Amino acid sequence: MSVVTHEERLARVALNRLGEPGETKMTGLVAELGPVRLRQLLLAESDLDGLSEEVAARRDDLDAERELERAERQGLRFVVPGDAEWPTQLGDLLGAGALNDRGGVPIGLWVKGPLRLDALATSLAVVGARAATTYGDEVASEIAATAAQAGHVVVSGGAFGIDRAAHRGAVAAGAPTVAVVACGADRVYPSAHAVMFEHIARTGAIVSEAPPGAAPLKIRFLARNRLIAALSVGTVVVEAAIRSGSLNTAHWAGILNRPVMGVPGPVTSAASGGVHEHLRAGDMSLVTCGADVLELVSPAGEHLVEPAWDEATLRDRLTPRQRQVIDAVPVVSPAGSDSIARTAGLGVREVQGALTALQTVGLVEINRGGWRLTALART
Amino acid sequence: MSVVTHEERLARVALNRLGEPGETKMTGLVAELGPVRLRQLLLAESDLDGLSEEVAARRDDLDAERELERAERQGLRFVVPGDAEWPTQLGDLLGAGALNDRGGVPIGLWVKGPLRLDALATSLAVVGARAATTYGDEVASEIAATAAQAGHVVVSGGAFGIDRAAHRGAVAAGAPTVAVVACGADRVYPSAHAVMFEHIARTGAIVSEAPPGAAPLKIRFLARNRLIAALSVGTVVVEAAIRSGSLNTAHWAGILNRPVMGVPGPVTSAASGGVHEHLRAGDMSLVTCGADVLELVSPAGEHLVEPAWDEATLRDRLTPRQRQVIDAVPVVSPAGSDSIARTAGLGVREVQGALTALQTVGLVEINRGGWRLTALART
Repeated sequence: MSVVTHEERLARVALNRLGEPGETKMTGLVAELGPVRLRQLLLAESDLDGLSEEVAARRDDLDAERELERAERQGLRFVVPGDAEWPTQLGDLLGAGALNDRGGVPIGLWVKGPLRLDALATSLAVVGARAATTYGDEVASEIAATAAQAGHVVVSGGAFGIDRAAHRGAVAAGAPTVAVVACGADRVYPSAHAVMFEHIARTGAIVSEAPPGAAPLKIRFLARNRLIAALSVGTVVVEAAIRSGSLNTAHWAGILNRPVMGVPGPVTSAASGGVHEHLRAGDMSLVTCGADVLELVSPAGEHLVEPAWDEATLRDRLTPRQRQVIDAVPVVSPAGSDSIARTAGLGVREVQGALTALQTVGLVEINRGGWRLTALART
Repeated sequence: MSVVTHEERLARVALNRLGEPGETKMTGLVAELGPVRLRQLLLAESDLDGLSEEVAARRDDLDAERELERAERQGLRFVVPGDAEWPTQLGDLLGAGALNDRGGVPIGLWVKGPLRLDALATSLAVVGARAATTYGDEVASEIAATAAQAGHVVVSGGAFGIDRAAHRGAVAAGAPTVAVVACGADRVYPSAHAVMFEHIARTGAIVSEAPPGAAPLKIRFLARNRLIAALSVGTVVVEAAIRSGSLNTAHWAGILNRPVMGVPGPVTSAASGGVHEHLRAGDMSLVTCGADVLELVSPAGEHLVEPAWDEATLRDRLTPRQRQVIDAVPVVSPAGSDSIARTAGLGVREVQGALTALQTVGLVEINRGGWRLTALART
């Protein structure tokens, strides 16, 4: 049940249309005055720190009621703070510093798709280069699939490269995924992703802070990036060249005190350069797979990654002296304990004791020709 | 000038032959009693915490004087604490905890080659997998060459893979390099590296704690690894699978409070698995190239790495509003300021002001058809 009045929702639709996504002046005034009062003041052409003049060009033919109805006919809904499905984690944006003039809690979110936004409470952002490599695509898909299987909704930006691979990984795991886009939620950008967006709109959600019809202007990507970071419990950057836009998402995740994770790649790959720079600087945690990611975003103690081992070796449990002896035992042609003692540089008596112990655990065997390693010791 | 008496040197030759490299009991007693006194006690068959019995097999035909002479004829010298060229940084091993029963300051080092060991005061260890990939080889060579050019002697283990690539990088930079080996310094192991060892022995140094003729037993590699770490101001691991031996070298560098550095690789490459595990655990610093390494091993403030940038973009210096406008300016067909204002969702007056500013810095141009981006803005 929503506690939002129709008047407030319409005010938010109008204000959302008047400003640019995440424009700090607008989101700040909404937080300060409330949407209904702010809308009234703007209609009365109050100055409001210059905001009135800035939005003048858009005020003319604005009919919030009609916009909301038209959008609903297109399958869009406008989710605002106070709605039951509002992702309350976006409240963290209230205190977070403005970056590039974009910041604050969104006035509302246009949503297309069946997934309720409160399902994003444990969502994971997987982002990265548009110009991704096959390597990056594979790793992003694996991470997204693993996270999706563990119940995290995968959030990304619907772009070429890593974004697409992340959405695909979640879809392959049979899970809903969310594309937060910089254009209107009714638009398809890039158009080559029409089929993917259609699938996401049918099973997950396409989310935008920009009003329906809005073009994917570069400036809107910055505001969008903060939403991807703020919606998610953590952000994984799979590939990002130096100064890549996805590093902006990572930066926001850091501002919001969410785990920021980076997947390393070959140091010779420019597509991993930005990730390596941040791993070096220590403002990303290195992850190599979905399991690593789950360890970092899960409540303490869940999803701990088992330390990886080669096949456990019996040798590890030997004493240093026993190891010294076994190193001197031949693989093929058996040798006497005196010969083994010479090779090992140890006394014969000591070597005989060690050989008996090694025989007990099945690492050496004795026959008429002397001692040699067992098949077990040779593996 | 050495302050070491001939008697002490011979005592060290003898003790070195009696024990195994780095055996803690032996190095501890040398530190406690001094080499001359310890040798006397062993000849008198004092028990010495069981050491006497342990070395019994090797005591029989030991003639230190003859061993030293024979080794010198082979071009080997025995460098001991107190010699002018003794690498005093090995003194750090005195306090360092024993690992796998190997530890302590070496009794002496057998050396083949013209490089004095005091030239290792700022040496850099570059180690890694024997089963290296082409990628690892290339990165190891680059790091070694860069370090060598900056005056750091490159130390490695002479093995296949990364070790070889590290030595080769230093040689390619025209610099001497040092191979610290697990067998006698007179031996060539692996034999496929005969030409490389010959070159190192002619221009740098082959160093071993094991006496001449000693075989490359597995247990001797552990003692050898501690020397590589202790000789160097820092250790770089380029590729290492989970549980690779080169991680033992890194572990020693950590114990000795020397920087431990790791080069990431594809997370899909098993050869980088051990490095990633340690980078994740935070006990290695991520490095991507020789310059990164120099920054970490150089005195504070030297060799700072410039943050890498894409081509600096004029766009970065624009105000958010100017960026919003330039995003709406067409690339090819010029548009009027009213059309640009509609696309940008801004007032016409404001857009005109921004366009003039953008024209001043050369990012947009006006002709009869209207405004469009300049060639500069399109790059």
